[in-house]
Amino acid sequence: MTKGLVILSGGADSATLAFELDARGDDLIAMSFDYGQRHKRELEAAALIAQELGIEHHVMPLPRLGKLMKGSALTDGDVDVPHGHYAAETMRQTVVPNRNTIMLSIAWGVACANDCGYVAFGAHAGDHHIYPDCRPEYVQQLEHAFRMGTEGHRRADMALIAPFIHMDKAAIVKRGLELDVPFEHTWTCYEGGSRPCGKCGSCVERAEAFARAGSRDPLVP
Amino acid sequence: MTKGLVILSGGADSATLAFELDARGDDLIAMSFDYGQRHKRELEAAALIAQELGIEHHVMPLPRLGKLMKGSALTDGDVDVPHGHYAAETMRQTVVPNRNTIMLSIAWGVACANDCGYVAFGAHAGDHHIYPDCRPEYVQQLEHAFRMGTEGHRRADMALIAPFIHMDKAAIVKRGLELDVPFEHTWTCYEGGSRPCGKCGSCVERAEAFARAGSRDPLVP
Repeated sequence: MTKGLVILSGGADSATLAFELDARGDDLIAMSFDYGQRHKRELEAAALIAQELGIEHHVMPLPRLGKLMKGSALTDGDVDVPHGHYAAETMRQTVVPNRNTIMLSIAWGVACANDCGYVAFGAHAGDHHIYPDCRPEYVQQLEHAFRMGTEGHRRADMALIAPFIHMDKAAIVKRGLELDVPFEHTWTCYEGGSRPCGKCGSCVERAEAFARAGSRDPLVP
Repeated sequence: MTKGLVILSGGADSATLAFELDARGDDLIAMSFDYGQRHKRELEAAALIAQELGIEHHVMPLPRLGKLMKGSALTDGDVDVPHGHYAAETMRQTVVPNRNTIMLSIAWGVACANDCGYVAFGAHAGDHHIYPDCRPEYVQQLEHAFRMGTEGHRRADMALIAPFIHMDKAAIVKRGLELDVPFEHTWTCYEGGSRPCGKCGSCVERAEAFARAGSRDPLVP
């Protein structure tokens, strides 16, 4: 049985990834990061997904990160969350510089110490043009650096994997539906209300993915 | 004036690095990491060095990291600190997997958000054979990955620098003495006593460096 570490954001993509890896019989540890998000809905969602799968779940707090990174809508209460369609310009405001690298480097270290065969995360094709740290060449480069930096302190074949990196969100949702992912427990909206706002870039993108997958988002009444 | 972020561990190398960068007129932000070290002496030392230089200093807590990484003498109270000469085997026990990468990725993100021209850290030649994440090729690889992952979210020329990477500890101490680094405020010992233990690998290495630089460690009576 392969042991792996999966990063759970609480969103639909990483939930589907965890279900996918679990379905192939891997022994999973899940990790989430509390980097000072404006709300805790997605961390609660991540815990629910881990609970559904019956896997170990760790939340790594990064308490001062948000304060040290001013200017991002995800961490700075003074910046408005961009509404409307996910145009590159507005989505760029939601970037926490190097966020994926930070999460992945911590996950990689924990995975080394726990003798895992891989670290998996839910980057997908739809993000490539906006988020440079979701691109295949970046994942490859980072894996190379991580492997060099932990030579002798990890399983020799340890890998950084992003199995959905060439799939778009609709394909992921479709796969999730096949795997019976409880999408009602996932959270994608940038806002922390009791229901998704339906207006932010993430909500628009998620609605579109469900529509294209020929289904409906159970979170939207 | 170049703005830069320097990682301060509280030890002699990073203190000398901060003094070196300050001496060339750079505008510095200092960062330290609280990853669950067995003692806080080195964080206090880092704060003193930043205070001496009159620069901004941030301590980034990584509160659960130690618990998630069992088996390292630096974070796990159950493992003995290796004594005696710094043989590769005993020093290896002090490795927190991917620690440098974790600290550097956070520092890189903070540096992006603060419009810095570089992130600097005190890796030196003496560590190359033991710590894979102190080697020049690793620094180069990591810089490449960081730059890819933050394209469009950083100064175009932002770099990851390790100015002492080809110097040994004796050469660094020598340079530090020229720069009037207050070595009495630095802390290198793995133990957290009121004085260095004189026995751990770090103490032995530091004593040797001062001797070879033709000086005496002000911490040792």
